[in-house]
Amino acid sequence: DHFIIAGFGTTGGAAVHELMENGIEPGKILVIDPSEEVLERALSVGCITLMGDATRNATLQMANIEHARSFVAAGGRDDTSALIVMSARQMNETVKISAIIKSEENEFLVKKAGADTVINPVALGGHLLARAATGSHVVDYITDLVVASGRVQLIERRVEIGEVGGPLTSCKGGLAVRIVRGGKYYGFWEPEAQSVEEHDIVVEIVPTGNAGANMSVGDAVPPATG
Amino acid sequence: DHFIIAGFGTTGGAAVHELMENGIEPGKILVIDPSEEVLERALSVGCITLMGDATRNATLQMANIEHARSFVAAGGRDDTSALIVMSARQMNETVKISAIIKSEENEFLVKKAGADTVINPVALGGHLLARAATGSHVVDYITDLVVASGRVQLIERRVEIGEVGGPLTSCKGGLAVRIVRGGKYYGFWEPEAQSVEEHDIVVEIVPTGNAGANMSVGDAVPPATG
Ligand SMILES: [Ca+2]
Ligand SMILES: [Ca+2]
Repeated sequence: DHFIIAGFGTTGGAAVHELMENGIEPGKILVIDPSEEVLERALSVGCITLMGDATRNATLQMANIEHARSFVAAGGRDDTSALIVMSARQMNETVKISAIIKSEENEFLVKKAGADTVINPVALGGHLLARAATGSHVVDYITDLVVASGRVQLIERRVEIGEVGGPLTSCKGGLAVRIVRGGKYYGFWEPEAQSVEEHDIVVEIVPTGNAGANMSVGDAVPPATG
Repeated sequence: DHFIIAGFGTTGGAAVHELMENGIEPGKILVIDPSEEVLERALSVGCITLMGDATRNATLQMANIEHARSFVAAGGRDDTSALIVMSARQMNETVKISAIIKSEENEFLVKKAGADTVINPVALGGHLLARAATGSHVVDYITDLVVASGRVQLIERRVEIGEVGGPLTSCKGGLAVRIVRGGKYYGFWEPEAQSVEEHDIVVEIVPTGNAGANMSVGDAVPPATG
């Protein structure tokens, strides 16, 4: 039930940092990278490290991918990422795989290789720039939803027994925005959301522990402290 | 009331595409780039183009920055972006300025130079990878909130007269999640959100025109059509 991170560049490093912020113990995070120098940084924050080439089955086997909970392909060229994802998927049919890509045209390729989630930071950055050009509060809110710090977080969870039969808006805990049912998404305004079913997954916004903290306009997340 | 985009690389290009998806006419978008080849791509989608160096005041003056609605610094090195932002801010005290950075440590620098919003795609990508490692529905939802396509969008707007005095949850149109009041943010769960005031800005999730479209799990946004 460990997390494997293939690549500890800027993106992979940010992913590991954020996993730890989300409460994952560093001892549950195994970092694969070909560079010893890079791995020393991963070691220094408590991760398990493995020097090697993540495109090779032998490396993934040493990382015990058969029993991993999640696999992250972070960084490198898109064709390398596709190859890593394909190898990882061949060795574990059910592990959750996510990958970073640099070019939009490779999204389909990497999904076809077996990734559950493909993230394109450059395209997202462009989209956010466009949103920022018309108003900054939206960008601050989205940033807060994404990062573990700040005042809110977007989570997904199973429906609780007491919620079944009621509308999505009556779900406890936070502000429910979407349900996942039978492989489809339904929004808060749709008839399907008026009666929650037992096997639904709820996507909801929840206040975080920092929710009492004062946040000013322009702070996507609270200022970092010493 | 035009938009100036300094840099038409992958990020700047994505920003322009998304502005147009959000209904901004390409004739209102002025692209500055030193490369003629790059500018031809901008021309081909209908933008106004200006060949030059956006760090120079003369270039910004030719772009009529005094009357711009929004200025976007997209791409290039972080120190160049800081310089561009500083020049733009000197020439227009009130224009909305947003900028892309590549390294987290430069966020403060670029904000200090005068940017209203600073976006770090690499860090965001890492954060999203971490979220994807524990569940993909959250990442799909955040992507949908960011991009113009898909089923929902996050917007900011002024409070309407009929909403004043009521709770945030009774705001019409969408699902209100946060208010901006006196330079501070308040969430849907807070006492301040129980009575909306006249000058509040509301951040809310609204269904888009595509809201009737069926979306399956794994589709952050509907599949592109021919
Ligand atoms: Ca947060
Ligand atoms: Ca959308």
